Amino acid sequence: MGGDFAPRAPIAGALHALTELEHEHFVQLVGHTRTIENQLSALLEGELAECRHVRDRIIIVDAPDTIAMSDKPTAALRSGSNNPVSVGLKLQVDGESDAFVSAGNTGAQMAASALLLGRHAGLTRPAIATIFPTARKPLVFLDSGANVDCSANELVQFAWLGSVYAEYVLSRHNPAVGLLSIGEEKEKGNTTSKAAYALFQSAGFNFHGNVEGRDLPAGASDRGPVDVVVCDGFVGNIVLKFYEAVMPMIVGLLNDVQSFDRGKLEAALGPLDSTSYGGAPLLGVRGVSIICHGNSSPRAIKNAVKVAVRAVETRVNEHIEERLLGLVSASGTGQVA
Amino acid sequence: MGGDFAPRAPIAGALHALTELEHEHFVQLVGHTRTIENQLSALLEGELAECRHVRDRIIIVDAPDTIAMSDKPTAALRSGSNNPVSVGLKLQVDGESDAFVSAGNTGAQMAASALLLGRHAGLTRPAIATIFPTARKPLVFLDSGANVDCSANELVQFAWLGSVYAEYVLSRHNPAVGLLSIGEEKEKGNTTSKAAYALFQSAGFNFHGNVEGRDLPAGASDRGPVDVVVCDGFVGNIVLKFYEAVMPMIVGLLNDVQSFDRGKLEAALGPLDSTSYGGAPLLGVRGVSIICHGNSSPRAIKNAVKVAVRAVETRVNEHIEERLLGLVSASGTGQVA
Repeated sequence: MGGDFAPRAPIAGALHALTELEHEHFVQLVGHTRTIENQLSALLEGELAECRHVRDRIIIVDAPDTIAMSDKPTAALRSGSNNPVSVGLKLQVDGESDAFVSAGNTGAQMAASALLLGRHAGLTRPAIATIFPTARKPLVFLDSGANVDCSANELVQFAWLGSVYAEYVLSRHNPAVGLLSIGEEKEKGNTTSKAAYALFQSAGFNFHGNVEGRDLPAGASDRGPVDVVVCDGFVGNIVLKFYEAVMPMIVGLLNDVQSFDRGKLEAALGPLDSTSYGGAPLLGVRGVSIICHGNSSPRAIKNAVKVAVRAVETRVNEHIEERLLGLVSASGTGQVA
Repeated sequence: MGGDFAPRAPIAGALHALTELEHEHFVQLVGHTRTIENQLSALLEGELAECRHVRDRIIIVDAPDTIAMSDKPTAALRSGSNNPVSVGLKLQVDGESDAFVSAGNTGAQMAASALLLGRHAGLTRPAIATIFPTARKPLVFLDSGANVDCSANELVQFAWLGSVYAEYVLSRHNPAVGLLSIGEEKEKGNTTSKAAYALFQSAGFNFHGNVEGRDLPAGASDRGPVDVVVCDGFVGNIVLKFYEAVMPMIVGLLNDVQSFDRGKLEAALGPLDSTSYGGAPLLGVRGVSIICHGNSSPRAIKNAVKVAVRAVETRVNEHIEERLLGLVSASGTGQVA
């Protein structure tokens, strides 16, 4: 039920996903049953008639309460609330589903995910990991906005989450982890990033050093490619939203010059299209919770479902848990760092 | 003598600037005299022969010492050092020049500018104000990297500097000042930005509210256009360097699709070209100090010289001084905020 184009976009996205996924995969659509049934029927009798064969892999789960996009994060946590976020996540807690995907209220999804799924041992806060398109391969960019005023220790936690995710979900061998800062030298940065640099050097992951804003589009610094970029969620969110808005502006300017063909433009810039990745995993929770943009299209939802499937199939959460347990027992502080 | 392409780029840029400026304007080239003379002669006898008529408006000022791009900011401050940054700024202190432009070591230029020109009363730190291209008019974006770990009070100071600059140099009436954050609501942000929001509401300039990363390319939020965007120099520097690198990446991807013509691409994207603005003023110092990119082209230097001329002709420093004095006497704290 979540997102600017709900219920149509999530339902259409689920149908598209099922047509591309193996038969063993099912989608539970969580929300107001009658609304979902009506929308589903309309799509299958109309524009998505070609998806009728996947109808029997859709299960509707009733969640009659609602959370508005403008509600506070605590809205999902009211006891007894049968809202889609709480109901959907509880399915996972109860072993009745493997992953949760939503384009609804991000704050509510984060708060309910942390509460209901729980955090991995050794972590202070979960982080949103965005798959960040670059001219090279995409990189894992975190935190994208779940947390502000992060400590240097929390940046170390994010680095580990991103590193394990890049290794198992993106198949990067010994992923290079960069620290977002304002110069490549370790003396460059603010108080937190400089403290984080010192911690990163001995943390145990493959620390690439600082990366600058100019390195992000290339996915590499002068010292080589990076697979993971770590930053506070304040700067992460600003950079990410800026990135998402720059591309349409440039395409708009190009279209003002008559001779550019929109299709060719989109073909050229396709690798940078954020809907190719669809959703950003909330890392650090003991489960799979994929956060989609409020404005997600059916294509974005479809790809978010596939991100969820890959997270489950690669057992990334078990790998994270295992890595963190080793770090926590080594640190002796009860935390990763 | 400063920058990656010195002495050629600064000298060529100065020649280009003089051909476009009125006869009353002169350029002092500060550095190693023989090196400058040789480069100047080579250009005027070769590719810039058409600039020969401005040769008599160039004055060479000897500064035999050097500052490397990698030197620490304190390099310019060593007593008795006849380096181009110190010598160039002292000309302004002594009333022998009106403005200083450099593509050299930014840290050294900032430190020497603050020490030699002095700060306006009421300010804690100067800020780099970048003219930030948008789909609409450019906006004043500060701080672009002079300061990290800024306080909310310092963000208020930057807001006033940007507001006066936008009013007098960019001719914006009652400029709208946005605060860079991660949501439009005042509760969104980090500790510093939320504290700044509260101060901005009663500061006295035309406060637009928070702007997000997605608003920057448009130069406007849902609530209308912005003329000034204020942020800490850590996030400012990251966003700015990212912006400068995104454009070439996109042009590169487009050129991979054979049918795009480079000239047309550049014509379409010209309004976003940062070399159109050439240099970023260091605001808050009692003089004109324009900071150019190390990789500045002659065109960027030419435009930076014109930015300097406009700062002098609009008497923006006197307007800043006057505004700040009023604020300091009203605050009763010796500071603007």
